[in-house]
This record gives sequence, C-alpha cells and structure tokens, in this order.
Amino acid sequence: MTQPAAPASRVACVALDASDPLRSLRDRFIVPDGVLYLDGNSLGPMPRAAGAAFRRTIEEEWARDLIKSWNSAGWFDLPEKLGDRLGALIGAAPGQTVVCDTTSINLYKALHAAIGLRPDRDVVVAETGAFPTDLYIVEGAMASADRPMQRRLIGRDGPIEALLDDRVAVAVLSHVDYRSGRLLDVADLTRKVHAAGALIIWDLCHSASVIEFAFDAQAIDFAVGCTYKYLNGGPGSPAFISVAHRLQAQARNPLSGWWGHAAPFAFDLDFRPDSGIRRFLCGTQPILSIRGVEAALDALDGVDVAALRRKSVALTELFIARVGALLPDLEILTPREASLRGSQVAIAFDKGYPVVQAMIERGAIGDFRAPDVMRFGFAPAYLRFADVWDAADMLADCIRAEVWRDPRYSRRHAVT
Amino acid sequence: MTQPAAPASRVACVALDASDPLRSLRDRFIVPDGVLYLDGNSLGPMPRAAGAAFRRTIEEEWARDLIKSWNSAGWFDLPEKLGDRLGALIGAAPGQTVVCDTTSINLYKALHAAIGLRPDRDVVVAETGAFPTDLYIVEGAMASADRPMQRRLIGRDGPIEALLDDRVAVAVLSHVDYRSGRLLDVADLTRKVHAAGALIIWDLCHSASVIEFAFDAQAIDFAVGCTYKYLNGGPGSPAFISVAHRLQAQARNPLSGWWGHAAPFAFDLDFRPDSGIRRFLCGTQPILSIRGVEAALDALDGVDVAALRRKSVALTELFIARVGALLPDLEILTPREASLRGSQVAIAFDKGYPVVQAMIERGAIGDFRAPDVMRFGFAPAYLRFADVWDAADMLADCIRAEVWRDPRYSRRHAVT
Repeated sequence: MTQPAAPASRVACVALDASDPLRSLRDRFIVPDGVLYLDGNSLGPMPRAAGAAFRRTIEEEWARDLIKSWNSAGWFDLPEKLGDRLGALIGAAPGQTVVCDTTSINLYKALHAAIGLRPDRDVVVAETGAFPTDLYIVEGAMASADRPMQRRLIGRDGPIEALLDDRVAVAVLSHVDYRSGRLLDVADLTRKVHAAGALIIWDLCHSASVIEFAFDAQAIDFAVGCTYKYLNGGPGSPAFISVAHRLQAQARNPLSGWWGHAAPFAFDLDFRPDSGIRRFLCGTQPILSIRGVEAALDALDGVDVAALRRKSVALTELFIARVGALLPDLEILTPREASLRGSQVAIAFDKGYPVVQAMIERGAIGDFRAPDVMRFGFAPAYLRFADVWDAADMLADCIRAEVWRDPRYSRRHAVT
Repeated sequence: MTQPAAPASRVACVALDASDPLRSLRDRFIVPDGVLYLDGNSLGPMPRAAGAAFRRTIEEEWARDLIKSWNSAGWFDLPEKLGDRLGALIGAAPGQTVVCDTTSINLYKALHAAIGLRPDRDVVVAETGAFPTDLYIVEGAMASADRPMQRRLIGRDGPIEALLDDRVAVAVLSHVDYRSGRLLDVADLTRKVHAAGALIIWDLCHSASVIEFAFDAQAIDFAVGCTYKYLNGGPGSPAFISVAHRLQAQARNPLSGWWGHAAPFAFDLDFRPDSGIRRFLCGTQPILSIRGVEAALDALDGVDVAALRRKSVALTELFIARVGALLPDLEILTPREASLRGSQVAIAFDKGYPVVQAMIERGAIGDFRAPDVMRFGFAPAYLRFADVWDAADMLADCIRAEVWRDPRYSRRHAVT
C-alpha cells in the first residue's frame, strides 16, 4: 500500500481533518470533551443514536409491551439479523453469521465443530501470542473432544509451515495481535492451512470493521470476534461467530441449546439442529446488550471498511512518524510497514505503566499490557489527525517530564 | 401447608389486598395501566428503579467514563457480587453463585463438571417433561464427555428410584415444571439421588425468588436458572450457576475462558482455574443486561422469599377455586395441593390458543404451550388478589363467548 507522507505540522493535520471524507462520522459517536480516546481497541465509545435505541428497548419494548416484544419487536431474530449485517463488514454473505454469547464461547463452538469435521486428525495449532483466552479455550475444547488432542504453538512470526502436517485438524489465528498490533496475512496463511487439509478459525476481535476481511473470497472456514472494540457495541455486548455455508450442515455445536434447534417452539424431546447458521445459537440472548450491537452497526451504516482502513493506516503512520521524530530512542513494536499493521501502535517502555497513567490524567486514554507495552488504538471512525498529533506530543511530554517519579501513578489491573 | 380459605368475592379480594403485608412491593415495578400481567413466569416486568440504573450505566459509565468503568464502576466484579445476592434468595451462602451467560450454557458447565466428578459412571438422568433445552444440553454435554454416556428419562411422577443405580453420575431436575406448574420435593429427591452416589443439578428457572430453596441446608450440588422470569432482570438478562463449595476445587468448567482464570490479567499461556466459584465464568459479560439483574435484586431487597411463597400459594389457590366455580368442567393440570404447586396454574383446553389470545386483547396476558396448555403465572411481588379474581372472570367470559369462533385469534409462535 503506498501511503502519502504523514502531515508535518499540527496545521497540516487540521487541514487534513477538514478534507477527510470520513469527518462526519465522528458526530455519530459520543467522545467526551477534552478526551483523546486511544482505547477504542478495548472499549469503543457510545454511538450517539444508541441512547434513544436503548430507551426504546427499555421503556417501550420491555416496560410497556412486555412479553409480546419477543415477536413484535423482533427480539428473537436479532442474532441472525445483526449477524447478516455484521457479516457484510467482514465479507461474509448472509446466512453465515450470528451475534450471540461471548468470543470465548463462540471460539469453543468453532473449535469443537472443526475438530469434529476432521475426525482423523488430533492437533490444534494456536499462537503463543494469542489473547490468552483463545489458548485457554483451545485447552477446554481439546479436553471435550471425542479423542485425545494436542496443542501446537507458533510464535507471531511463524513460519506456520513447520507446524502443519496431516495431523492438524484446525488452526486458530488472530488477525491482529492484541499486544503488538501486528497484522497477519490472511490469504497466505489460510491457503497454507487449507493446503495441509486443516480448517482455519480467524479471531477478528482486533480487526472487525476496521480492517478489510474477505470471509467468502478467501474461503475462510470460521471467524469469531467481539463487538465492543472497533464495533462500539457497548461493554460486553454479544460476540459473533461466522461459519461457512459449505460446512454448516456437518458442523456440530456442542452447546446444543434450544435456540439452535430446527424448531425451537416445537419442544421436541431430542435435539435436531437448525439446518443453517442458527445451529450455532444456544440460549436466550441479552436483549439490551444486543441492541447496542444494532446501534453500532447503524453508526457504521453506509461506511466502506476500505475507507476506514485507509484512514486508520494514515493515523498510525502519523503517530509512528511523530513519535519517531520526538522520541527517536523509543522501541515501537508495531511494524512500520502498513500492510503488517493493525489499527493500533504498541510501544515497549519499561516505565510504560506510569506514563500511560499520566497520559490518562491529561486526557489521552491509552492502555498498558504487562510487562512493558503501551498500547494506543486509532479508531478511524472518530479520531482526527490533530488528535493523533496531540497524543504524540503528550506522550513525549510525559516521558521528558519523567512522570514515573510521581508516586501517584502506581500499578493497578487493566482490562483488554 | 394450611391455607386460609380463598376470598369469596371481589370485595373480599380488595380487602385482602389492602391488608397484604407485601402490597407496597407492587410500586417497585412498572405494570402498565389496564394490564393483568400473568406472564411474569416468562418475562418479568421492569423494576421501576431500573430505568435510572440503565441510564447511569449508559450515560455515565459507558459514554462518559469509557474504559475506566471496568474498574471504577465495578463491571468486572458484577457476576460474583450479584451471584452472592442471588444466592441468598436460594439459600446458598456467598462464594457459590455467579451471574453469567445463559441457563443452557450454565447447565452445560454443570453437567460437564458433574460427569467429571463421577468418572466411573456413565448415565445422566433427566426428565421427559423438562423444558426442552435441558434435554438438548444433556445430549450436547454427553457428546462432549470423555467417555460414552447414556441418558435415562423419567416422567414428572417418577418414581426416580427405578432409574437410580451405581451407573448414574448426575440427575437434572426442574424444581417447577414449566408446563404444568408441578413442584417437586427437593429434599426427598436430592436425598435419593445422593443415596445412589450421584450428583444433582436443580433447574430453578421457574422458582428462583418465588419458592424457597435450601441450597446449603439440603446439600445441593449444582443449581442453574434464569433471571428474567420471577427475578425480573429484563429480556435475556444473564443466568446464574451455583456450585457447592465442597465441589468447586475438583469441578472442571469445560468453557475455560479467561474470566475463569486464577489471574485473568496475568495473561499466562496455560489455563489455571480460579480456586473458587469464578472458575465457572468464561468470557466478558453483557454489562447493560447484567445491570438489569442488579436492579431486579434491588427491587427484592429486604423481601422474604417465604412471604412471597405464602402469597403466591394464596393467589394460585384463589385462581383455582374461582375457575373451578365458574368453569367446573375445565381440566386444571396444576396440582390442587399447595405443596405440589409452583407459582403458576396450567389449564388444558383444546381451544386454549384462541382463548389466551382473546384474553391478551382484553388486557390479561397469559401464555400458551402446545398442544393445549394455557399457562397463567402469579407473581406475588406485583399481582393483587383482585387481579386474580378479574383474570378468572375474564377467562370464563372468553370461554362462554366461544372466542375461538373469531378468526382473529389465529396461531403464531410463542416464547417461554
């Protein structure tokens, strides 16, 4: 990807913002005054229209219309309806995605289904650098398989070929590394995994809606991800799972609850899975929280993921360039090459924790990952070039001021 | 249980309401004007204070405070904190209950753990009359076990002894039958299951908070249930799971996600479960929906479940007596004996579907379960004796008017 040079002054940033074709998108989100929000890779801000949507769900659908809203307000169909809309953002045609449960639970379903689809194989490939719940769920899914399974781990740099053979049933890879922000080559890795006869599950937690993904075009088998980061669905809003049409009829969801039944209201004694993607549902979904996903999808309505990606690359490019100019000795973990970079920039710094705390106090909210990683997310839907310029300045100010000498910035736990 | 005679006139009902020690509770809920809500056994009404609680979560915690609310608003601790409060309503001491996920998923966890705790046994006992998702999840959990398992089914009348032997690992029973409203004898059945060396899981979906349950006193092993029926947590609000202290260290949650890890923020490569009840968590919970559970628990604060149960028995007693007087030929499926009855009354009637529809149109909301069951739930927190009197009258009016001759009341699907 050829990238125009990053703006060289704050004035140039302001000019770039004024001509940004996505500039009006920011108005669709509530970004508090005085806040530079660089943590949308952890919890996205609230879409402005979400307030009215929640109010309607609470006051009209629940409080006033009560039980009949399951039908009249379409509650029962939300997982599939929102799944189709979300699928459009990751290149999946309708009928392959449902919004439900949590990423961990959906990964368990996908792994179990994949292991069942490769009954003569006994290895699951996963990444040492995966967000840890992926590794834990691999353990849980392997222990629930109908045969002994083994886990093989690869580092972020691979090469995956060394681990692929005819024992591998499935590989789980993260599109973007949650810590370093490194982006994997989906086409290349999927091809290699498929060439070995294995299935692939992509974890899109850190990329859905902000980086192009071609579920259908690249013949992906399964994808899972959350909806509360770049998708802005709200704290803990239900996750998603996509399963390719060609696999659905044979893919078994171990969490065989009534919402995945072919006829949930027939109340049969035996489980008979839905013929399509609904078989990956299980139980009743949290309606208030799932309405957040709907409001979030509304806020991205009509927006091209490719345009978001272009702006995201320009924002991270600017941050890297500016930090490099101000603090040339700092170790930037995120690749400089745009095609290898997600929508965040990670910086290794042994005093990273107090620096992030000091920045938060000054209004620039990023986060910290042990042992020494400062993470800054650059969500193109609501961040401006001038914001990025200011954030780099603030980072430099905090480091030059040696804020870690101030005892206020002590350690506490953080959340992904 | 000796019960005073049901009131013999509407005037007597109004007098009873005026002296009802629980009468002020109704003000804590939004019951729309002109509605007789007899479907709180399916979706409870909104607690009046929930609106402000949701608004605070949406506008202050999410929109304004963003990521820091995970700590400052205590989001991360809600499953355990609300679990302890909910546990108090079912006789479980703190540290044994978490609010999370769905009933189906929690049942899967409990079954898997129980099967693991009885490694030399290969049978799961379940009820033919269970809400079907319980049966489906039994199938899924058996298929995910480390050995071939079998399901043995009992009818609601048992006797369970005929099915219990040294092959039974675990029995799953529903405290109240979702269709007939029949209540099981927890003490007796738990004793029998334990005497056979098996574990027991009680499904409390249709009883939690409205019928006394003695988790600790009766040495129950596992309980699961939803929070959106008599608990009034809102549509699809997260469910709960209780696991006895004595089993926790050995009980394995197959859904081994990061929220169940001993140190979720240490980001270890390997799963090491929390030493206590948190090991039954999996992934990030839907915060808006879980705040509904909190508001619901607030609405029941200081209320004695025994008092709710006494009023519930009196309400169902009145309905049965009045329906019996008005429509002596109708077949009431729910036991007349109070100790065998949950908080609902089920009536078999071949024209039940159009009758329920006609009653809804007249403002009395009950529901229908195929093939021919009319269900009326009597939630003591907000229903009055006069409401019950009026509902019986309305039922009699609809049947005498032969409303099924009106083509408006055609069939459509319904939700539990």
